[in-house]
Amino acid sequence: MAHSSVTIRVPGEPERGYEIRIGSGLLGSVPSDVAEMLPGMRQFVVTDVNLVNHGHLAAMVGEGTEDVYVIDPPGENSKMLSTVENIISEMEQKRFGRDSVILALGGGVVGDIAGFAAAIFKRGIPCVQIPATTVAQADSAVGGKTGVDSELSKNAYGTFHHPAAVFIDCSLVKTMDDVSYRAGLVESVKHAMIADPEYFRYIESNIDMILERDEAALHHLAEKNCGIKGRVVEEDPNEKNLRRILNFGHTIGHAVESLSGFDLLHGEAVSIGIVGACRISQEMGLVSAEVTECAVEILQRLDMPVTITGLKKASVMETMKRDKKSIGGVPKFVVLDDIGTVHGVDGQYAVDVPAEIVEKVLSALDAK
Amino acid sequence: MAHSSVTIRVPGEPERGYEIRIGSGLLGSVPSDVAEMLPGMRQFVVTDVNLVNHGHLAAMVGEGTEDVYVIDPPGENSKMLSTVENIISEMEQKRFGRDSVILALGGGVVGDIAGFAAAIFKRGIPCVQIPATTVAQADSAVGGKTGVDSELSKNAYGTFHHPAAVFIDCSLVKTMDDVSYRAGLVESVKHAMIADPEYFRYIESNIDMILERDEAALHHLAEKNCGIKGRVVEEDPNEKNLRRILNFGHTIGHAVESLSGFDLLHGEAVSIGIVGACRISQEMGLVSAEVTECAVEILQRLDMPVTITGLKKASVMETMKRDKKSIGGVPKFVVLDDIGTVHGVDGQYAVDVPAEIVEKVLSALDAK
Repeated sequence: MAHSSVTIRVPGEPERGYEIRIGSGLLGSVPSDVAEMLPGMRQFVVTDVNLVNHGHLAAMVGEGTEDVYVIDPPGENSKMLSTVENIISEMEQKRFGRDSVILALGGGVVGDIAGFAAAIFKRGIPCVQIPATTVAQADSAVGGKTGVDSELSKNAYGTFHHPAAVFIDCSLVKTMDDVSYRAGLVESVKHAMIADPEYFRYIESNIDMILERDEAALHHLAEKNCGIKGRVVEEDPNEKNLRRILNFGHTIGHAVESLSGFDLLHGEAVSIGIVGACRISQEMGLVSAEVTECAVEILQRLDMPVTITGLKKASVMETMKRDKKSIGGVPKFVVLDDIGTVHGVDGQYAVDVPAEIVEKVLSALDAK
Repeated sequence: MAHSSVTIRVPGEPERGYEIRIGSGLLGSVPSDVAEMLPGMRQFVVTDVNLVNHGHLAAMVGEGTEDVYVIDPPGENSKMLSTVENIISEMEQKRFGRDSVILALGGGVVGDIAGFAAAIFKRGIPCVQIPATTVAQADSAVGGKTGVDSELSKNAYGTFHHPAAVFIDCSLVKTMDDVSYRAGLVESVKHAMIADPEYFRYIESNIDMILERDEAALHHLAEKNCGIKGRVVEEDPNEKNLRRILNFGHTIGHAVESLSGFDLLHGEAVSIGIVGACRISQEMGLVSAEVTECAVEILQRLDMPVTITGLKKASVMETMKRDKKSIGGVPKFVVLDDIGTVHGVDGQYAVDVPAEIVEKVLSALDAK
């Protein structure tokens, strides 16, 4: 299949940009492509044990490469400062210098950790993202957010560090387990709902092909996701305003994810949050019930939860107030004027919602 | 005494700038000044046990403040990632959020550690630098370099994170021990030699007042240092070219500092490096012997070493080759066309020097 490419201007640095290369079977040529982009730079790979077990690391760099750090166990539990320290310490031991580049092969956790390591090694070296999951390909590999969790909060420590390039190999997601695969598609639904009604219709019409992991469909999703997120990040790199639209579904989503003790996958929690945000838009008189119904239908086709049965309303409210995106203890919501159009108030896209409406919507989501 | 102020445009972000406020006895009003600059932001202080013992912390925030981290032991041995982690972890425990600012009260080590903590807490919060030593007031508080050491190298990990403001209280250096005080003045000599012959003459003529820690003289030094460094950093924030002139005296200096096992203070090592760089300029036919003599004389007035008696030439050469600023294993030197004028080759200010010249100069510095 032909490759395609989206270019993102690096925010605040108009002379720089980075390329997102999209295709199937790109993986094997990543090291030589990076060597061409960044000549003379030593390459160090950060990945996790899942990617190794599925053969993706070997497919990228061959067998027996030593300049690699394998995160084990994989997943959120390794997303801590000590993992970053282990990576950069190993690079120091191996005498990597400023003329180095980190290749981050994996999902969102690998990308966040590796991006953070690159941001602080020798005051910043380039990082190339090779996202291997639906959520990383749709969302986290683009935009420059990096970070690790503290004992108390998610992404407590981190930086903005834009990748030098992103390689999206659509075939990588074929080895994902089913629920993670589907949960990662929720960010695609989110992108469609905040920016592109045609894209939303595409997902509705092609949901079977998408669930079958059809490469042409995945290629189309990657182009759309990177185009939408890229334009938002270009315009508002440090989340002063427009970038907040990417938080659609995340106000309730983050609270629910946190209250579940992270039993819910991020995409599952955001699925509930998207339905909540649609219902809030409806209660505010901005959209018809049909918008919520369309959202529920597509999310249910992905087998994602759309209610929070069992959770207490008061707990959800309190957790939202403590979210780091709350301002003065008041949670902010991204709401819609229509599928594809975020509602703005005085040019701001994260808005206040009356507590009665939020509580009513939490009840409608089946909270106690 | 009247305050004065220098403003630095933040490189790459033309709409932002930060103020360097210079005066004596500024310290007590820093918290209220910061509250005015950054309204509504919670203030967290990072300092070290020396500053506490000299009463400077209490002079700034009063007795009994809890939102403070005291680095103990002070100095380079604490400049490691675990100290940064302790700081940000304490901020997490105390529920500091994105709406926080770190006040860094101390010398270069405190500024580097606190600046790094601010850079990575919640993906970056503002840091206000309140430098308390001659070296920090002349050099490290301005420019945005932050970092900590690894077991193998200095400043192995860090970021560029520009301060939100700098407060230089010239009276703070009065509590410094004599040798550290004098060693810190070497960076002032460096600034004069690379950028401002009149400033060089000022230091020559007023060396007694400077050594007596006269506040008017220190005020003049601070203005000159911040003006010179600020203009260089504005023009070349990420050390692509012009900023390298700030490395004058540091090629030999860093090697000698490292070979001494850090027994030499940074300023002492740079003193030797400045003499070396002058001799190299002389051997290259760029300057007369008089330039070297002027440098030696002023550095000796500061009681700084100007030879490296006992060190092996081969060790110095090898250490310079491994320096992180070497390119392809070849050390680069900043040399002069005159006092106040750096020599450029094709617009580059860090140049190659024939090995014979370097060896000859190391011999002249009394290396074996």
